[in-house]
Amino acid sequence: MDTMGRHVIAELWGCDPEKLNNMSLVEKVMVNAALEAGAEVREVTFHKFTPHGVSGVVIISESHLTIHSFPEHGYASVDVYTCGDRIDPRVACDYITRMLDCNRREWIQIERGEGFTGAFEEHVEILPVSVASM
Amino acid sequence: MDTMGRHVIAELWGCDPEKLNNMSLVEKVMVNAALEAGAEVREVTFHKFTPHGVSGVVIISESHLTIHSFPEHGYASVDVYTCGDRIDPRVACDYITRMLDCNRREWIQIERGEGFTGAFEEHVEILPVSVASM
Repeated sequence: MDTMGRHVIAELWGCDPEKLNNMSLVEKVMVNAALEAGAEVREVTFHKFTPHGVSGVVIISESHLTIHSFPEHGYASVDVYTCGDRIDPRVACDYITRMLDCNRREWIQIERGEGFTGAFEEHVEILPVSVASM
Repeated sequence: MDTMGRHVIAELWGCDPEKLNNMSLVEKVMVNAALEAGAEVREVTFHKFTPHGVSGVVIISESHLTIHSFPEHGYASVDVYTCGDRIDPRVACDYITRMLDCNRREWIQIERGEGFTGAFEEHVEILPVSVASM
């Protein structure tokens, strides 16, 4: 499989707090977002925190979608990462944005797996030969 | 819980292909990376692809770690996202880097959940009131 992928990182503010705290709804939104974008869902795992908040991931054949919700702040941090060029991660992100009633959004798209290009200018490292062992 | 978090996005090249294709090893590396950084593991989900490659996520109380491996390219895309300032995502990322025998790494760190600051200059959007419903 080609390593190239697109990773959308989105900050969703002004979301509906009740939706953000409803794990089954959040899970449904995330799975449907994957399907909406045409992705193939492989694994779905969600966790409800006490007193509030939901974390979850949808592993797709093309990579993953994740969410962490903070109902008390009306905030959700969302990642949609899709390998290949068949799936547009923005489609899934837009769906999530709509379904959580987000009214202020910031997002960036990062290109992944393009080779050791130095595109991540912040830190580019040639490492010594590792002696790691499990 | 505070929304603020740090998200390390890492591109690991020159990794050991056999390790990258060994799901139980990759899962162990990712869980141990979370523990190494002092995170609390909540959910662990991994998936093995045919003919090769592993995708997986470790949901931690502080957010998540994900990996997608491409053994045939010696490449793994890794994310370590930790909320709060107690856990340093770079500790987990460094551990994964070592354990997969990565010899070329690029990474960036993105600040998450800082409020609607416009820091993601690429796309900052005030959205119309949504009428989304599930």
